[in-house]
Amino acid sequence: MSRHFLITLAFDGTAYHGFQVQKNAVTVCETLQNAMEKVLHERPDVKGCSRTDAGVHAKGFCLSFSTESGISAEKLPLALNHCLPQDIRVLSAKETAPDFHARYAAHSKEYCYRIRTGGIDSPFDMAYTWRVHGQLDTDAMQKAADVCVGEHDFSSFMSQGSGITEDTVRKVYNFTVSREDTLVTITICANGYLYNMVRILVGTLVEIGMGKRTAESMKTILAAKNREAAGPTAPAKGLCLTKVLYEE
Amino acid sequence: MSRHFLITLAFDGTAYHGFQVQKNAVTVCETLQNAMEKVLHERPDVKGCSRTDAGVHAKGFCLSFSTESGISAEKLPLALNHCLPQDIRVLSAKETAPDFHARYAAHSKEYCYRIRTGGIDSPFDMAYTWRVHGQLDTDAMQKAADVCVGEHDFSSFMSQGSGITEDTVRKVYNFTVSREDTLVTITICANGYLYNMVRILVGTLVEIGMGKRTAESMKTILAAKNREAAGPTAPAKGLCLTKVLYEE
Repeated sequence: MSRHFLITLAFDGTAYHGFQVQKNAVTVCETLQNAMEKVLHERPDVKGCSRTDAGVHAKGFCLSFSTESGISAEKLPLALNHCLPQDIRVLSAKETAPDFHARYAAHSKEYCYRIRTGGIDSPFDMAYTWRVHGQLDTDAMQKAADVCVGEHDFSSFMSQGSGITEDTVRKVYNFTVSREDTLVTITICANGYLYNMVRILVGTLVEIGMGKRTAESMKTILAAKNREAAGPTAPAKGLCLTKVLYEE
Repeated sequence: MSRHFLITLAFDGTAYHGFQVQKNAVTVCETLQNAMEKVLHERPDVKGCSRTDAGVHAKGFCLSFSTESGISAEKLPLALNHCLPQDIRVLSAKETAPDFHARYAAHSKEYCYRIRTGGIDSPFDMAYTWRVHGQLDTDAMQKAADVCVGEHDFSSFMSQGSGITEDTVRKVYNFTVSREDTLVTITICANGYLYNMVRILVGTLVEIGMGKRTAESMKTILAAKNREAAGPTAPAKGLCLTKVLYEE
């Protein structure tokens, strides 16, 4: 009898070319499937909650899969962690309905982006933050972020090559910019994301924080529906998928 | 004219065979001297505040050196960081008197040791914590730590091969065991340390926390002046040199 699981992962994305399996590059999904093969004696088809770019990290990545194996949800994390490299950890596992899909069932996903704006980098932090030179006006950044909350066409914040061409409307529930000493953290929660959307939003907010653009320009950028209107794509290493929310 | 500097370093020790230069292994000191050669156009003799074992980390390692270069203390950190790998960062630099020696001038040094006692490891934390299976009685550990505060002969907590044979008395100023969820942190501040002293103290405290030894046994272990009397040497990766204190 087939059984169905939802698994939550944390991974340091530094060594991986994103989550999704690729032909000529090592990915988180493929590495996980290698571990599954040892534990489950089969190689399940894995449905990730998102693709995540190369180098992006996760503290709460969710995925679903089905298996003929009789292993319990309780034993899965320990068994898989034993077969996984240290930079990927299964945090939890639970059984789901047969039709559960980690991506389609997600109500919203939360990402955090970390920016270091002064002082000297810590060797313990450099793989997880983007170093920006100069100060950032976080009030202006928050004003611009506020403009993005709600339902909008985010095509100005989409890189080419995603395959998404039609439905470019997404709903942003929360979008906050906070500062703690020299660390600026941007947190966004939305019902879905276009290709590179968070990284382009962050790149644009940073230009606003630097005074290269005004907070008000965010409206014009959204309205343009043109990638050229927005700022640069922020580096992957500052980004972390922190949470996926499902309706109970 | 010779100038004299005190430098504070942070490093992720994972990739290094400790601080001190070794013939057939890469060390933090040698890597720093390579950077110094680029910046100062000479290779100064570096005096570290301690040796630190292979794999031990630091957030506040201090060292002193003299140079004929005219570079200012203000410019040194940026210039050196530019030539250093990401896992070593110069946090600050200041000029000192000619006879200043980072090791002999140190009043005391503080180390922190991190132990994970439950839950699942974080991929962002595994290189910096020791995973212990089962619960730890931190009250008993604190009681045993209290026994070590003050001036004692710590030869029971010294590995062979250090070269230290005579003066094995050290003064411990603080020794605390604290818990936050599943993370137990042991902090010790002393005027000096014997070879592997912190790691053997931690290994012994963990056996006490597990109930394999009583808190009271710490007195007997100290009195034995024999390495065989103490517990195992805790792994290097949980240990971090956090602070060196100098008299103003």
